[in-house]
Amino acid sequence: MAPAWAEKADMSLKAEIARRFGTPALVVDLGVVESNIARVQAQLDQAGVANRPHIKTHKSPELAMLQRAAGAKGITCQKLGEAEVFADAGFDDILISYNVFGEEKEARMAALLRRNPVALTVAADNPVTIAGLDRAGRMAGRPVGVVIECDTGRKRAGVETPQEAIQLAVEAASRPGLAFRGLMLYPPEDGWERSQRFLDETLAGLRAHGLSAEIISTGGSPNLPQAGKLKGQTEHRAGTYIFNDRMQVKAGVASMEDCALRVYATVVSRGGAERGIIDAGSKTLTTDTGGLEGHGTILEHPEAKIARFAEEHGFLDLSACNDRPVVGDIVRIIPNHVCVVVNMVDRLIAVRGDEIIGEIAVAARGRLT
Amino acid sequence: MAPAWAEKADMSLKAEIARRFGTPALVVDLGVVESNIARVQAQLDQAGVANRPHIKTHKSPELAMLQRAAGAKGITCQKLGEAEVFADAGFDDILISYNVFGEEKEARMAALLRRNPVALTVAADNPVTIAGLDRAGRMAGRPVGVVIECDTGRKRAGVETPQEAIQLAVEAASRPGLAFRGLMLYPPEDGWERSQRFLDETLAGLRAHGLSAEIISTGGSPNLPQAGKLKGQTEHRAGTYIFNDRMQVKAGVASMEDCALRVYATVVSRGGAERGIIDAGSKTLTTDTGGLEGHGTILEHPEAKIARFAEEHGFLDLSACNDRPVVGDIVRIIPNHVCVVVNMVDRLIAVRGDEIIGEIAVAARGRLT
Repeated sequence: MAPAWAEKADMSLKAEIARRFGTPALVVDLGVVESNIARVQAQLDQAGVANRPHIKTHKSPELAMLQRAAGAKGITCQKLGEAEVFADAGFDDILISYNVFGEEKEARMAALLRRNPVALTVAADNPVTIAGLDRAGRMAGRPVGVVIECDTGRKRAGVETPQEAIQLAVEAASRPGLAFRGLMLYPPEDGWERSQRFLDETLAGLRAHGLSAEIISTGGSPNLPQAGKLKGQTEHRAGTYIFNDRMQVKAGVASMEDCALRVYATVVSRGGAERGIIDAGSKTLTTDTGGLEGHGTILEHPEAKIARFAEEHGFLDLSACNDRPVVGDIVRIIPNHVCVVVNMVDRLIAVRGDEIIGEIAVAARGRLT
Repeated sequence: MAPAWAEKADMSLKAEIARRFGTPALVVDLGVVESNIARVQAQLDQAGVANRPHIKTHKSPELAMLQRAAGAKGITCQKLGEAEVFADAGFDDILISYNVFGEEKEARMAALLRRNPVALTVAADNPVTIAGLDRAGRMAGRPVGVVIECDTGRKRAGVETPQEAIQLAVEAASRPGLAFRGLMLYPPEDGWERSQRFLDETLAGLRAHGLSAEIISTGGSPNLPQAGKLKGQTEHRAGTYIFNDRMQVKAGVASMEDCALRVYATVVSRGGAERGIIDAGSKTLTTDTGGLEGHGTILEHPEAKIARFAEEHGFLDLSACNDRPVVGDIVRIIPNHVCVVVNMVDRLIAVRGDEIIGEIAVAARGRLT
C-alpha cells in the first residue's frame, strides 16, 4: 500500500512535463518552495537569528530573491564564482563560507569588489587564506570581511582550538586589506554544548585583544531546530531546506510533502521481471547516497529500490513491488541529496501544483572556481 | 617512496594552471590523448574491428575529431541531446546506444534527421522503443536505423534471450520508419563465450527470417583486449580509453602514464596533523568510487587517501604520508572514474607536456535528454 504522499500521481502534469521537456527532468514545485522558505524564515525570526541561506542548493538568483523577499539578511556561497554570479544579480551581502585564495581568485575577488559595492565576507581557518584575502582587499582598495572558521567537532574545515581562532582573528584585524567580522561555525547536530564552550572562550580571548565579533554564524539545515540555542549566535546558514530531500526527511527536519524537487524519469527497459531501468543514472541522480539505502524514493513505487547506476541507467530492484512499472511509464523520484542533483543541470522546471510555470536557470552551476 | 609516475611534478605548469585558471581545474594532456587514440585504433585495426568511440567520456566534438582522424568509423552517444550536438558538428554516422523514445524525443529525432543527413542508428530492447523510433522515422521521412540490444550477462539493458532478439528484429524490419541494422552487445569481461553462443543462435534465427546483421557492435574499454574475439563482431564502442582513469588501471587496460586527465586542486585547509582538505569535493570528483578504495590518486602524495567528500571539500587522510602537503599546495589527482568527472565541467584545459594549449569545450555536457 503506497503511503499518502505517494498517491498524488498527477497524470496530466507528468504527461505534459514529458511532452514539453522530455526526461530526465528536474521539476520544482514553487508552492512547496515558498512554504519551505516561509517556515524556516519564521523559525529563525522566532529564534532571533538572521537567515543567510546557502545558495549551493539551488545556485539560482531567482530563487534567492524569494528567500530575500521573505526576510533573508544575505546569502552564503561556497565558491567565488557563485559569489560573482549573485553579486552581479544584485545580492549585496555575501558570505563565502570557504577558504578562498590563490593569485587568480584574489584578482577576481578584487575585481568584484571594485565593480560592485557588495559587502563580501570570506571564511578563513589558516594564515595562508588570511594573507590571500588581505592581498585581494588591498588590490581592491576596500577591505574583505573575514570570519574565522571554527571546527567544533565536525572534523571538516576550521581551527580546532579557541587559541588558534583568537590568533587568526588578531592577525586578520591587523591586516590593512581585511576587516575582522566574527566567527563561523558548523556545529555537529549533537555538538552545540561544545560549540558554546568554544565560542565563549574565543569571545573572551577576542575581548582581551579589544576585538568583538559582529557575526557569529552557524550552519546546516539539520541544525535548524536548534537555531537560537547558541548564546551569541547572530545568523544561520542553511541551504537544503529550500527543496529538502530524503536526507532531510531522515534527519527529521522535513516531511516527504516538504520535498519540492522531483526528478522525472522514464522507465526505458525492463530486463527480468524483478528489474527495471530508468533514464536517470549517476549523471543525473549522482552516486551520493547521503548514507541512505537506495538512491531515491520513487513516488509511484515506494517499494522499488534504485539499487545502482550506470552513467545514464538507474537500475531498479522491483522484487518488493507488487505493482511494477512498465516500459514507457514516467516516475517521479525524491533524490537522496538534492544539492548535488541540481548541480547536474542548467535549468529546473518550475511548476505550481499541476501547472507548469516556466524554467529556472541554475545560473551558477559549473562555477567550480 | 613515490613511484616513477608520481615524480613528474612540473612546478611551472602547476603554477601556470593555477595562475590562469584557478583550481579545481581539469587538465588534459593532448600528447597522452593522442597516444591513447592511436594505440586503441591500432589494436582495433589489428583485430579487424571498426572503432566507434563512445563520446560520453569527453562530450567534445573537438576530441571526437581526433578519434575520427585516427580512423574511427563513427561515434557512439548515450543521449539524443549528445547526438544533436555531434551531428550538428559534422559527425555523420552516430549510434545512440540507448533506448530513446517519448513524444518529445521522437519529434527532436525527426527534426535532426530532416535537417541533417546523419546516418542515425538507435538501440532498442523492447517494443515500446521500436514503436517510438518508427514514429520518428516516419515523421522524418527517412528510416531510423535500429540495433537490438542484447544482454549477454551484464544485467544492464538488453533482451535476455536470442528469441526475444529475433522477434524484435523481425518487428523492426517490418516497420516503415525503421531500418534493421544489427545487434548491440556489451559483454561482461568474462562473458565472451556466452556472448558468442547468444550471437550465433540469434544470427541463425535472423537468417531464417531472411534478415542479416550488418552491425554487430560490442562495447567497453576493459573489453578492448578481447576485440576480434567474437566471431561476427563488426565494431567496438569504447569511451574511457581516450583519457583513462584509476578504474582502467585497475582493470589492467591502462597504466598510470596513460591517464590523460588530471584534476588540479589546492590544499585549502589542514585541520589536524593527519588531515587535509582540497578544493575538489563531490561536485568536482563525484562520489562515484568505481569500486575502488579512496576517491582518486594524488600524484604528489600517492599514500594520501581522498577519504570522503563534502560538496566542495575533499577530505584527505594523511596518516600514511611521511611527506604531507601544506595549505596552498597544488596537487594533481587521477580520478577513479573520469567520465563522470568530465561531466561536471563546461571546459577542459588542454596541455601538451608542460605547455598550455588552450581550452576544450565539453559541448554536450548537460544534454540530459
